[in-house]
Amino acid sequence: MALIVQKYGGTSVGSIERIENVARKVIGYREQGHDVVVVVSAMSGETDRLIGLANAISPRANPRELDVLISTGEQVTIALLCMALIKLGQPAKSYTGAQVSIHTDSAFNKARIESIDDARIRADLAAGRVVVVAGFQGIDADGNITTLGRGGSDTTGVALAAALKADECQIFTDVDGVYTTDPRIEPRARRLDRITFEEMLEMASLGSKVLQIRSVEFAGKYNVPLRVLSSFQEGNGTLISLEEENMEAALISGIAFSKAEAQITVTGVPDRPGIAFGILGAVSDANIEVDMIVQNIGRDGTTDFTFTVLRTDYERTLEIVKRQATDLGAREVKGDNKIVKISLVGVGMRSHAGIASKMFQALANEGINIRMISTSEIKISVVVDEKYLELGVRTLHDAFELDQAPSV
Amino acid sequence: MALIVQKYGGTSVGSIERIENVARKVIGYREQGHDVVVVVSAMSGETDRLIGLANAISPRANPRELDVLISTGEQVTIALLCMALIKLGQPAKSYTGAQVSIHTDSAFNKARIESIDDARIRADLAAGRVVVVAGFQGIDADGNITTLGRGGSDTTGVALAAALKADECQIFTDVDGVYTTDPRIEPRARRLDRITFEEMLEMASLGSKVLQIRSVEFAGKYNVPLRVLSSFQEGNGTLISLEEENMEAALISGIAFSKAEAQITVTGVPDRPGIAFGILGAVSDANIEVDMIVQNIGRDGTTDFTFTVLRTDYERTLEIVKRQATDLGAREVKGDNKIVKISLVGVGMRSHAGIASKMFQALANEGINIRMISTSEIKISVVVDEKYLELGVRTLHDAFELDQAPSV
Repeated sequence: MALIVQKYGGTSVGSIERIENVARKVIGYREQGHDVVVVVSAMSGETDRLIGLANAISPRANPRELDVLISTGEQVTIALLCMALIKLGQPAKSYTGAQVSIHTDSAFNKARIESIDDARIRADLAAGRVVVVAGFQGIDADGNITTLGRGGSDTTGVALAAALKADECQIFTDVDGVYTTDPRIEPRARRLDRITFEEMLEMASLGSKVLQIRSVEFAGKYNVPLRVLSSFQEGNGTLISLEEENMEAALISGIAFSKAEAQITVTGVPDRPGIAFGILGAVSDANIEVDMIVQNIGRDGTTDFTFTVLRTDYERTLEIVKRQATDLGAREVKGDNKIVKISLVGVGMRSHAGIASKMFQALANEGINIRMISTSEIKISVVVDEKYLELGVRTLHDAFELDQAPSV
Repeated sequence: MALIVQKYGGTSVGSIERIENVARKVIGYREQGHDVVVVVSAMSGETDRLIGLANAISPRANPRELDVLISTGEQVTIALLCMALIKLGQPAKSYTGAQVSIHTDSAFNKARIESIDDARIRADLAAGRVVVVAGFQGIDADGNITTLGRGGSDTTGVALAAALKADECQIFTDVDGVYTTDPRIEPRARRLDRITFEEMLEMASLGSKVLQIRSVEFAGKYNVPLRVLSSFQEGNGTLISLEEENMEAALISGIAFSKAEAQITVTGVPDRPGIAFGILGAVSDANIEVDMIVQNIGRDGTTDFTFTVLRTDYERTLEIVKRQATDLGAREVKGDNKIVKISLVGVGMRSHAGIASKMFQALANEGINIRMISTSEIKISVVVDEKYLELGVRTLHDAFELDQAPSV
């Protein structure tokens, strides 16, 4: 018998029929003898409907009142799911974020969970009830309703699992797990049985939108085993956990990519301290997030400085950097918004040499020119022309034999 | 400068445009120097939409969860109204029933308010804010969300006005006040400037659905002056308050009527103790509400017993009474579901004789046969054939000159 926290997203509870499916699924786990705490999102479309109402009044609605408004979405779902459970004979009780004391800071619309009082939940579980908690919301020290920001229901699930010391936090979504890469690009992509928190973070930040990044960080921090499963089909999904002995066999876990990138290069920048800040300070002041940053050894007292931003920020960034470059006495500012980033991710590369060269060779064999390289402990990223995205991903998937399960 | 509690119903906040209208109206009162607390209902149609979701799961949804569900309707409105106020430059803060500590008993779906903690509201008012409170909902001693039952937002308004010792509780609705009778039947019906709580109760219970009965009782009990006003047109509405000196001039305040009545007569009942209970006990056990009850002096050891019920309960009541009548040895059970009740209401009749005979004479002059009579201290009701409803109402309106304002 285990204690399981399950989180069902908006699509999984998008209609009365689907809510009743979730109820049956939950009861299935109960029948296996598990204690179950369920976290739900708003029914799909509901949060957008509520935000639409707010926008009709003001596109800059008061943040406190916006949270009062949109927190109703999850409150509707918890009630409906409990009704469905009770109808099927399973005692259940719903709680809003406030009722179950999910205390957050007072940053409306993007609050962070500070503590959870688990006494009520434990009492209900002990009484044989399924506990259904509204995701995405909490209450601050003054009793104001707060929300955790979009996708925050995952975070609620993980935080509850941590507070309750649950055996597993299961995130039910519309995909059946984490894949070696996007199956729409590489049909031979394979579902991973396991992946580490760190790998998942690298995969998630590169656009595998299976899980919210914050919830993975949170799970890693508190060592809550996370499992991604499909609401709509059977299967064990993918378990995201700490690195373990038998995981070493997997050299590379997956290939992530990001299509929405743009690259900006400043050439002939005087090679002296403060240059990076001189260029990027103004970019960051404009709330533009910079991803990769590469600076080469200088030559003739000048250096070239390249970085990437989201493609939607490209024009604005170029404008800012051009102003800065003039001030700094740089030679030229060049940009390209037709690039993509492809990354190999795997904790195994920590202990194995030669991964990078194998990667570069595989790409070279296909005539794919690498324009930028950046590495971290468990990731190697390359920037290439966007026309090579699919070819690049498939080439690497093949080169590292990711369609084959690793031998233990 | 006064402290005013205003309640706006579902139609008054039925769209973003109307919510913005309410915001402007509230600001108008602020500009006159008043402190304003606003109670709002769910946007029209919203509560029905939510109940529809619950019914899709189960027509007998769990009562606790039903309250969690439908209380979201008002929560949406408080947030939207505050956003609208803030956009117009008026500081405002919203509170759910739980947040403002509207403590109720634990009777889900029909809870009763036990206490209200007014500290937060007073602090906000002192800071120049408009306070917007979700109507219809509260919280029980265990922190469960409760609702007061349909129309309960009026009760929230009155309870808040009582707790805050407000100068007036204004109920904004889609009619501009209380009329001497239904203007659709008597076009010369006149809006009353004032009416007493007792009169309003008699009018309300007879189908003038301007105010919820419980809220009028509550207002009377705590002596909270209630004013009924239109959200959509200017005017002073009707003030409902305790009886005062200058109100004595109004002999009759209005004519109420009820179309949905049915009459059942048991003839030849042995005239002995326990007969009334013998007939009505079984009816009340079936949760059927009995309205008028008339029993005449017996003759030859038997008596006739007549009562009225809602027309929708007619068939069921007839069946029950027929079974009882046999047991009691009654002669016959007769019924008629084509009847209506017309009532004269007025505190003035306490101190004036001859009202009843004037009423009966007026009806007789028009050939209207009276089938049943029942009187209370401030009301005389007659049951007549339903075809006489309009004629009866107009005849009495005319006989008591209700189209003329009473001379003080």
